[in-house]
Amino acid sequence: MTLQGHSLIAGETVTGTSGTTYGINPATNEQLEPAYTLISEQQLKAATDAATDAFDSFSTLEPEQHARFLDAIAENIDAIGDELIERASTETGLGADRLRGERARTTGQLRLFADVVRRGDFRGVRIDPALPDRAPLPRADIRQRQIPLGPVAVFGASNFPLAFSVAGGDTASAFAAGCPVIVKAHNAHPGTAELVGQAIVNAVRDLDLHPGVFSLIYGSGASIGQALVADPAIKAVGFTGSRGGGTALMRTAAARPEPIPVYAEMSSINPVYVFPGALNGDVETLAQQYVASVTGSSGQLCTSPGLVFVPAGEAGDQFTAAVTEAVTQLSGQTMLSGGIASAWEHGHNALESAADVELIGRGKGGPTANAPAPAVFGADLDVFTTNPVLHEEVFGAASLVVRYKGVEDLIEATRLLEGQLTASLHVAEEDYPVASGLIPALERKVGRILINGWPTGVEVGHAMVHGGPYPATSDSKTTSVGTLAINRFLRPVAYQNFPEQLRPAPLQDANPWNVNRLVDGKPEQAG
Amino acid sequence: MTLQGHSLIAGETVTGTSGTTYGINPATNEQLEPAYTLISEQQLKAATDAATDAFDSFSTLEPEQHARFLDAIAENIDAIGDELIERASTETGLGADRLRGERARTTGQLRLFADVVRRGDFRGVRIDPALPDRAPLPRADIRQRQIPLGPVAVFGASNFPLAFSVAGGDTASAFAAGCPVIVKAHNAHPGTAELVGQAIVNAVRDLDLHPGVFSLIYGSGASIGQALVADPAIKAVGFTGSRGGGTALMRTAAARPEPIPVYAEMSSINPVYVFPGALNGDVETLAQQYVASVTGSSGQLCTSPGLVFVPAGEAGDQFTAAVTEAVTQLSGQTMLSGGIASAWEHGHNALESAADVELIGRGKGGPTANAPAPAVFGADLDVFTTNPVLHEEVFGAASLVVRYKGVEDLIEATRLLEGQLTASLHVAEEDYPVASGLIPALERKVGRILINGWPTGVEVGHAMVHGGPYPATSDSKTTSVGTLAINRFLRPVAYQNFPEQLRPAPLQDANPWNVNRLVDGKPEQAG
Repeated sequence: MTLQGHSLIAGETVTGTSGTTYGINPATNEQLEPAYTLISEQQLKAATDAATDAFDSFSTLEPEQHARFLDAIAENIDAIGDELIERASTETGLGADRLRGERARTTGQLRLFADVVRRGDFRGVRIDPALPDRAPLPRADIRQRQIPLGPVAVFGASNFPLAFSVAGGDTASAFAAGCPVIVKAHNAHPGTAELVGQAIVNAVRDLDLHPGVFSLIYGSGASIGQALVADPAIKAVGFTGSRGGGTALMRTAAARPEPIPVYAEMSSINPVYVFPGALNGDVETLAQQYVASVTGSSGQLCTSPGLVFVPAGEAGDQFTAAVTEAVTQLSGQTMLSGGIASAWEHGHNALESAADVELIGRGKGGPTANAPAPAVFGADLDVFTTNPVLHEEVFGAASLVVRYKGVEDLIEATRLLEGQLTASLHVAEEDYPVASGLIPALERKVGRILINGWPTGVEVGHAMVHGGPYPATSDSKTTSVGTLAINRFLRPVAYQNFPEQLRPAPLQDANPWNVNRLVDGKPEQAG
Repeated sequence: MTLQGHSLIAGETVTGTSGTTYGINPATNEQLEPAYTLISEQQLKAATDAATDAFDSFSTLEPEQHARFLDAIAENIDAIGDELIERASTETGLGADRLRGERARTTGQLRLFADVVRRGDFRGVRIDPALPDRAPLPRADIRQRQIPLGPVAVFGASNFPLAFSVAGGDTASAFAAGCPVIVKAHNAHPGTAELVGQAIVNAVRDLDLHPGVFSLIYGSGASIGQALVADPAIKAVGFTGSRGGGTALMRTAAARPEPIPVYAEMSSINPVYVFPGALNGDVETLAQQYVASVTGSSGQLCTSPGLVFVPAGEAGDQFTAAVTEAVTQLSGQTMLSGGIASAWEHGHNALESAADVELIGRGKGGPTANAPAPAVFGADLDVFTTNPVLHEEVFGAASLVVRYKGVEDLIEATRLLEGQLTASLHVAEEDYPVASGLIPALERKVGRILINGWPTGVEVGHAMVHGGPYPATSDSKTTSVGTLAINRFLRPVAYQNFPEQLRPAPLQDANPWNVNRLVDGKPEQAG
């Protein structure tokens, strides 16, 4: 496909009038063709108007056509083939294998949401039948379903140019809910965004949907994003990125005449707790797994373990020595952009220069531009608990090993943490009694707890939670990965005393969409 | 019971150090004994600290004990007997029959939430079993459940001194979720609040729960409320009241270092659409029902119909004449307080003096203080659509009849409305085709749609939605009435690769709490 370099607004290619930008190859700092034109706030209006126009028909699609749309996007993305992997790799520095895996995850979650649409449980149907003879007052027939919120604005992440971008989890779950989507393309991967955007545009056309169901806009960073979130047509926002970016959108959304929800996934250091029993086993492998989890994708993962608690003393020292050994052998990999590499360096330097923090190990710089040497630092627990700098996420391949004296100190250290996406425990069976005492404290702080695993590698399923208390996300009641993510874009409506002819399909006695329903509070499975 | 006139903090009677307030009998404007002492911000800390301390044990109660707590509150409220009805009637001007009905609703919803706790569906258990042989990567065992958010602050409403106050829907649903509750007593019914608060304190003691599970605080209006919402211990807020009060709490919650959700139910004019076919029937009865819905409880209901669209022309005039007849016969009833009566008068005067708005009918003033004459006004549709004053809620017995020419004008008029709790359609079968065209526009604007009914009288069940788009509420994704309300106080957590011994009870293979679960995306009913 020849890249056009323009926004795709409701099926039309729109040349922006507010300047241009280019993708950059972070391995070489070279500019990539073509130029991407940036739209003005006035041009944005065409996208939001079209999304509003599309909402009525898109939100009431028959389930099978609705599901086919999601399947078609997945097929169209697969059909792009290697061009997508190559462009994404050039724009992000991520390797082809990683990107192939990410593509499979992206199309997999689109197909998973197609299943969700076919099953229909997300419609949340509840029926309280009329009780005409109830005393002192009869009860009317009341039925409830979940309906989509309206057009959704999606801001993709730089670190997942496929799975958290144009057709990523936010878009897939919003589409599955029945919401039109406007994606603000991430300027770090404009070509990848266009390729995927075109795949969605083609699916909209193939399924004969209203073209306003989807738009992909290119604009200059913050300003067009703020304008999009402030637009009255937009009813919810999905965002993955920095805390600064996320909280700015939260403020804009809260200040609207009609405030709207912002689902921002922002930052996390993902603490790992190594219990004494876990160090009776293969300490070397444990250390290698840790270093692999810290340095995979150049550490640019939301769930990268930025903090590991290990017991002070001999066993802990053995772990630390194995970490030194493992990290020293590594070379830096190209980071996503020069800006991200600079931010990493800033965070790394803050760790390096913090009082009573020592270097545990450092790899070599990579052969490309923007490929800094991965590094692991160490400190005692009291140093960690008293220095807020050590609690900040360093996005990239850097991590901190914190030595604790007694496991009882871990609960207090946990209370001092900010909200996180994940926490991981490494335990042997002898550690269970103490570990179980820590779990309630972890539940207050995180969205996912792992036993004897590493937090990177987020499964897309029904039970996954990729979320957590602020500032890990803006809304701990939701997840941005997995099928529960659809709930972010739904709201309940009750229908009282409706005759069968006026009831929406999933609420009809005939149950033509064959959905499971809660009748008088009890689950009733569809035939 | 002898009223003490003090806050109940974690089971202790605490004499406030920041002045006193009194209940007022709105029928006479007389001060009621005893004086209520108001706590300082420093004294508030005892309540929030105790709630934090209570959270661990309360959030992990066995379901049966948890349910018994809710049942015990209901029993204890019933056991107060007539003293509660009498004090509430004296403090609010509401009649004894209305208050008996409200008490039944209050204890009924506590018992309904006890059933919800016993059933356990709210725990939202999802299990994605491990797939060790999956290629290219195995899948870990991942399990999800909903856990309570933490201590909740509840602000009761003046107009439901039982059902939306100390042991009202917010408290019942927060307790059911497993959250400790701190209620800021409404200063318009301090004695009623104390009686119900003591019933909860007794239930906490009877069930041997941590006393911090519940506190009832008296404080001077806005300042102690803001301090409560700003307190880091508080993790969510339930509020029923004015738009000004609700939005002030929203701002405070959003500005915290850790923002928290505010569930505010604020204002609504609850439009009613009378279609031409509905006027072929018994117009007099329809008009009488309308007037009864407008004037019941002196119009002081969140779902009072403040706006009725009727066809211009002969049939509409007949309806209007019947409204005149019905409202003229009525006398004003005592309103909840002098402040509310003044606010009503202000709103009434704004309607009365609005250009091209005429009086349709007015009753007589009531014999007591604060019992203004109910009034219904009329205007043409274009007058309504162009004057924002006519879109504002007038809390109390006042309403506006708007005449429309063609049913097609109703969709556009609906688009101009703010978010509402309810909309009601009065239709005959011949109106169905046109009515069904209006329903999608209504779904964008309201939380509940009624056919051939009046919006007052909110059923407490599984399918009820008492919510709606801003400014009807602060969060359209929730309801403050019905069992779905529990979701406001829950968040999901995922447990990855947990051994059976470390799994929380509802996630164990053995399923000791016997809850329904979603296994690999498919509902699996407990035995």
